[in-house]
This record gives sequence, structure tokens and C-alpha cells, in this order.
Amino acid sequence: MDGHHVVVVGAGFGGLEAVHRLAGAPVRITVIDRRNHHLFQPLLYQVATAALGTAEIAWPIRHLLRRRREVTTLLGEVAGVDAERRAVKLADGEAISYDTLILATGSRHAYFGHDEWEPFAPGLKTLEDATTIRRHILLAFEEAERESDPARRAALLTFVIIGGGPTGVELAGTIAELARETLRSDFRSIDTRETRVVLIEAGPRLLAAFPDDLSDYAKKALERLGVEVKLGQAVTACDQDGVTFGAERLDAGTITWAAGVAASPAADWLGAPRDRAGRVIVEPDLTVPGRPEIFVIGDTASVKDEKGQPVPGIAPAAKQQGDYVAEVIRRRLAEKPAPPPFRYRHAGSLATIGKRAAVIDFGWIKLRGVIAWWIWGIAHIYFLIGVRNRLAVAMNWLWTYSFGQRSARLITQGDPAMLRRFRRV
Amino acid sequence: MDGHHVVVVGAGFGGLEAVHRLAGAPVRITVIDRRNHHLFQPLLYQVATAALGTAEIAWPIRHLLRRRREVTTLLGEVAGVDAERRAVKLADGEAISYDTLILATGSRHAYFGHDEWEPFAPGLKTLEDATTIRRHILLAFEEAERESDPARRAALLTFVIIGGGPTGVELAGTIAELARETLRSDFRSIDTRETRVVLIEAGPRLLAAFPDDLSDYAKKALERLGVEVKLGQAVTACDQDGVTFGAERLDAGTITWAAGVAASPAADWLGAPRDRAGRVIVEPDLTVPGRPEIFVIGDTASVKDEKGQPVPGIAPAAKQQGDYVAEVIRRRLAEKPAPPPFRYRHAGSLATIGKRAAVIDFGWIKLRGVIAWWIWGIAHIYFLIGVRNRLAVAMNWLWTYSFGQRSARLITQGDPAMLRRFRRV
Repeated sequence: MDGHHVVVVGAGFGGLEAVHRLAGAPVRITVIDRRNHHLFQPLLYQVATAALGTAEIAWPIRHLLRRRREVTTLLGEVAGVDAERRAVKLADGEAISYDTLILATGSRHAYFGHDEWEPFAPGLKTLEDATTIRRHILLAFEEAERESDPARRAALLTFVIIGGGPTGVELAGTIAELARETLRSDFRSIDTRETRVVLIEAGPRLLAAFPDDLSDYAKKALERLGVEVKLGQAVTACDQDGVTFGAERLDAGTITWAAGVAASPAADWLGAPRDRAGRVIVEPDLTVPGRPEIFVIGDTASVKDEKGQPVPGIAPAAKQQGDYVAEVIRRRLAEKPAPPPFRYRHAGSLATIGKRAAVIDFGWIKLRGVIAWWIWGIAHIYFLIGVRNRLAVAMNWLWTYSFGQRSARLITQGDPAMLRRFRRV
Repeated sequence: MDGHHVVVVGAGFGGLEAVHRLAGAPVRITVIDRRNHHLFQPLLYQVATAALGTAEIAWPIRHLLRRRREVTTLLGEVAGVDAERRAVKLADGEAISYDTLILATGSRHAYFGHDEWEPFAPGLKTLEDATTIRRHILLAFEEAERESDPARRAALLTFVIIGGGPTGVELAGTIAELARETLRSDFRSIDTRETRVVLIEAGPRLLAAFPDDLSDYAKKALERLGVEVKLGQAVTACDQDGVTFGAERLDAGTITWAAGVAASPAADWLGAPRDRAGRVIVEPDLTVPGRPEIFVIGDTASVKDEKGQPVPGIAPAAKQQGDYVAEVIRRRLAEKPAPPPFRYRHAGSLATIGKRAAVIDFGWIKLRGVIAWWIWGIAHIYFLIGVRNRLAVAMNWLWTYSFGQRSARLITQGDPAMLRRFRRV
């Protein structure tokens, strides 16, 4: 096939937005992703806490793009970029040549040099991460029900979340509700209301991206749900038995990592300059220095806003960058002058605390409490793709909200040996 | 705790029905299952073919029983029964003593002495089986899209189902619809309508439990959907590359096993007489010979109906047995005479062929076509547990029915290496 060939690696928010905004442009497009589905990451914690099923927040990429006849979707793992020959190298040896390349390969959770913590403190980035954490959480209650030793039982009923950003706050709030509300009548030997949920944050406050008063509110709202919030305490050890932070040692059956992310290896592929988190430091037009035909966007790009602050790794930022890059490509092909440099417009910050409170900072207005929760819920349903998923998620939420019950309390993907995992705690 | 202790192993249709029917009886009950969820197996093929998500057909057992304060649910794997000491032995060494034991441990798929076929022809009994088959099916299309060799591509687009019972018929019909309808617009290199779906049955007709004319109708209806039906042909080999049946060899990327089941090891645990499928041959009151305090019900019990025919391994039969056993226990505890021997009442046989046809044999009336499909659908939604799941499944079906789209087309649980699995075909 002829024509200018745009290759987009990664069908997250940034990559898909670029594809959408290139509709009608004189290009053919190949989308490469190692997953067959686009994932609505902002709600991933709800899969991890059994409120939503996996199919409700993920869509087959090729289905989303089925009406775009000029777009080819390819399930494959990228292993590198040959920038000289303008080709993407796949792990199976195939090479896909491009005229323009958009790298939107996202991030993974990072353990700040302590990768050995990962088996004990799994992070939350993929559907499998979410079902793994869901399994951990639900199995911990199952094991506690059968445990006769009080100390071990207390450890099994201790849930630690490391990291006080939006994901940590959301996980802590929903795990507390799961224990105190959803599971309350289901066990006989344990009282699930005795569950300890401990949120550990190294910085001086939760939700560092929000104003101080909303951080305070989030802390109080979490504490009302029964969460213990530990601020200014860095974790120094994670192991099979629990976690050490500051001078304290806590035995815990379940630890979840929400503390940090590292960029995809895009900078390695390109040999490009990178920041501390491994993100490619891009030009003001989001191209790689010296490679105007390669764009890097989303969580794997290091971009500054007008005030010199780093653009946050959130969905709206990735989408704005995808939109911008599509515009640059369109103008180039039409031989029009380039647009002004990318400028990030912060629409607002949102985070929920359990199912009846949230904090929102739109800049011009700050909201908290139940009203903020409703705005958060409506916004998220609006941004979900497809009427069907909106209905399904809305119905699930209504159900959880009204009856405190959750639809996806499944322990799956474990072999029977796993049943005894916690006995060693 | 005091009182007569009933232990129920297995929270399938039979086990749960026994628990429900024991409500109010002077007993305490322990339910043991190695899964945390009850599974609505009749719709499992819809998870395997991406029409339903996993959470829509499974419910946490302890949640179903939460209002029954005398019932304890225990997640654990049974390793044996010590009938002398009246105790169930768990795999982790714990022993649970009982006064009355109900074994409702179901069945697994069986390969008739060819267990080496299992990796190439997975069967369908658990949620993990279903997501494994879903991954196989969806990956085959992904790989075919990238395959340039026509013979290999044809092999990747060949789906073989072994076994022409209800599960085989349902799988064949839905895979054909998935290819011809759901996926039609999603690929660029392949025409998914060229997919071959081949259903192989060793016996002379499909749906052996149904009258001849409904078997014929099912065959014709499948053929209308594009399924090739091969009757009277026994499979003699399954391997990485495909399947051999009769004198024919067929290269196929995906093979699914729906041909046979074997009972759980309950007969081994008890040292009890068994039939060819490994089921415990029980007394007319469903107890184990010489052990009146042990009942065996459902797929793992060998029971004859009034005409001397074996009671089929279907949900209504298991439920009737659970109901009967509860009645026997109630009468014993009330020191009333035992009820008459168990008598199976066959309510009817149902099977669907794709999303617009079904066959139903109620005995007094036979139905087929669209009307049968609607009855099938309404019956299944009625038997689903919980209003929420009924709504969710009904909505999903309405969506699939109206738009041909499926909500759960997710390839999960695979490591990247798996992407290349099919390259060897």
C-alpha cells in the first residue's frame, strides 16, 4: 500500500487519540500494541477491589478502529526502533517501516531500585495486575477465616497500600469499604470490620497534586472509613511477612504498590535523552531531538508546562498530546507551517475516597464530598468508550452504591497450591 | 458448636441445593469448595466465546450463603475422606469431622485415555478453562492477520470442536457467529468469513439425548451458520498442528474438547464401587453402600432413572438430588420414616445453536428455531442467581443480539511469549 505511513506504538489514551485525530488525513496507519485491548486505567482499581469485571473497562483495539479502513491493528511486542532505517522492530523479528512514528508506550510501576519488593507488593497497571491484587485481597480474608492463631489472623487482615497518590487513596478507600460493608455478613470466624487498612505515604501529605485543604479532607475522609494514614514515612523493606516503614514494622498479608512509575523503554530504543523516571525528553513539538519524524507522547514523554512544571502522567494529558501530534502531522503533509509548541491545559484533578466522597480541583473551583463524588462518577462514565460499557458500569455502581455488594468477587487464575500461600505469614 | 454437623463438599448446583433445602433443619453446615465461587456452567461457553464476562456467571459462595448463620463456608481442597472416623481430609492436612457428608464434587473433562491431548484440545469446566479457550480463539485470529503463508493462515482460521453434545453444538455455533458477524469488520488482511468451524462427533448424530428430528435440525442449523459437521468419526490424534479423525487429517490452530467427562475422585476417596466414568454407584437413596451417612450427588454419582437409564449429568438432575438428600436428612433427624427412593423427573432438554436457534424437548412438546431460542434464553436468565446478574446477562445478550458485538473480547493471562504460540502451526 502507498501513502505516508504512520506507525503508532501503544493504544492507550495518547495513541488512540492520535489515531482518532488523524481521521481523514492522507495517511495509512498501523497501530501496534502487545495487548489486544485498550484499557481504561482510571478504573483499574475497581477491578482490583472486585467492584467491576475485567470486560467493563477494556475494549478490543481493533474493534474500536474497525470503521477506519486505513488503519491496521497489529498485536505484537515492540523490541526496538531502527531510527536510521525508519523501522520498528518486533520481538518476533519482524520489522515494520514507518514514515512517521508515534511512541505512546506508557509506564509501568517502579520500585525505586527495589525490584525485589515486586512479588510481595504487586502494582496496578494491567488487567492481570488487577485480577492478581483482587485474588490477594480475597484470599487473605479466606485464609483469615480459617486461621486460629490470633497474631497470624491479624496479619492476614492487615492491608497495606504504599503510595498516597490518587491510586493509593482510591485503593485504600475501597478496600476499607469492601471489608466493612461488602464482606460484613459473609464470614463466621472473623469480623471483617476488624480489618486494618494502612496507607503509607513518604511525602508530607496525600494527593500531592491537589491543594492542601483537599489533601487534608482526603485524609479525614479515609480515616472516617477506618483507614490508618501514615504520612512522611518511607518504606524501607517489603517481604513475605509485611512491611517496614520509618521505625515501624507491620505484619501484613497483603501489600499493594501505588508509589511510583517508570517510563516504558522508549528512551532505550531511541538512545534519546531521558529524565529520572526514564521518560524521553522531547522537543516543544513532542518530537525526539534530531528525529522530527518520531513523536513521543503520554506517560513515556517528559514534557513541561508553561510554568516549567512537568505535565502529569494522566489520561487528559496523553490525549492532548495525541491530539497535538495529529495536528503537526496533518500540517506537515499539507505543507502548512507548524503549529505553536504543545501547551498543556490542565482541566482539573479528581480522586475518589470510597463510594461517597471525592475531591476535585478544577482550578477555578474546588469541590469535595458527595457532590464531588457524583461529578467524578458521571465524568468517568462519560469518558468510558461505548454505550454498552457506560450502561454496564453505571449499573454496577448503582448496585454497589445501593446494596454495598460487588459483582466481581472472583478468585481466579490460581492453582490449588496457591490456597496455602498465606499460611506462611 | 454442637448439633448434627452436615459437611457439603462442592458448591455446584447439587451441593448448593442441598444447603438451601436444609434451611431450618436442626443442623449446622460446612460447605467446602476449592473455588470461592459457584459457577453457572450452562453459560460457560459464552465466556469462552467472549459474549459474557467472567463475573456475570459466577458468585462468591459465601455471599450466596451469608444470611444462613448456621452455614460456614470454607475455601479448601479435599484430599480424601476418612469414613471410619467420619472426617474429610483437606490437602493442607486439616481434618473436618462430620455426622453426615454430602459429596457433590462434579466432573472434569476426560480424554478417554489420551490425556496427552489436553494441551492441544483444552476442555471447558472452569472459568480459567473458559478464558483459556477465549484467548486461544482470539489469538488465532490475531496470528492469522499477521500470517503471510496461505496454508498456515488457513490452519489458524480452522477451529475444531470435538464432541457433538450441547456444549460442542453451542461452541461451534457461537464461534461461527463470532467469525462471521462480530469480527467481520475488524481485520484487514484476513476475511474472517473464510473461517472454518468443524464439529466432529464420533456417534451417528448430534445431541444424542434429543429425538432424531431435533438432532437433524441442529445439524442443519449449524450448517446454515457455516459449521462443517462430521458425524460418525472418532478422533484418533490431537497435536500442536491439528487433528486426525477417521481417514482425514485437518490442520487447525484451535481445538476445543467437548467430548467427555469423568467424575471427580470421590469414588477413590471412599473406596466405593464405580461405573465406567468413575462415578460412585449409589443406593436408591443416594447413599454410599454400607455408609448411610455419606451421600453422593450430581455429576459424580451414578444413578438410574425408572427406565434403568442413567440420570444425565445436568444441573436440574443435580438439584433434584440435592433436594432429595436434604429431605432424607430432615426425616432422619425428625425420626420419621425414610422417603421413597430417589426418582428423577426429566423436565426437558435444551440446546442453543448460535443466537437465533435452539432445540427443546420437553417430552410432551418439541420446539426448535427462534421460539425455542427465546424460551432457552428466558429459562437461563431465570435460573441465574441474583437480580443483578440477570440484568447484566440480559443486557449483554440484547446487545449481542442487536449489534452482533461482544463485550468480553479480552486476551488476558498470557505472557508475551504466548503471542508466538501459533507461529509453529
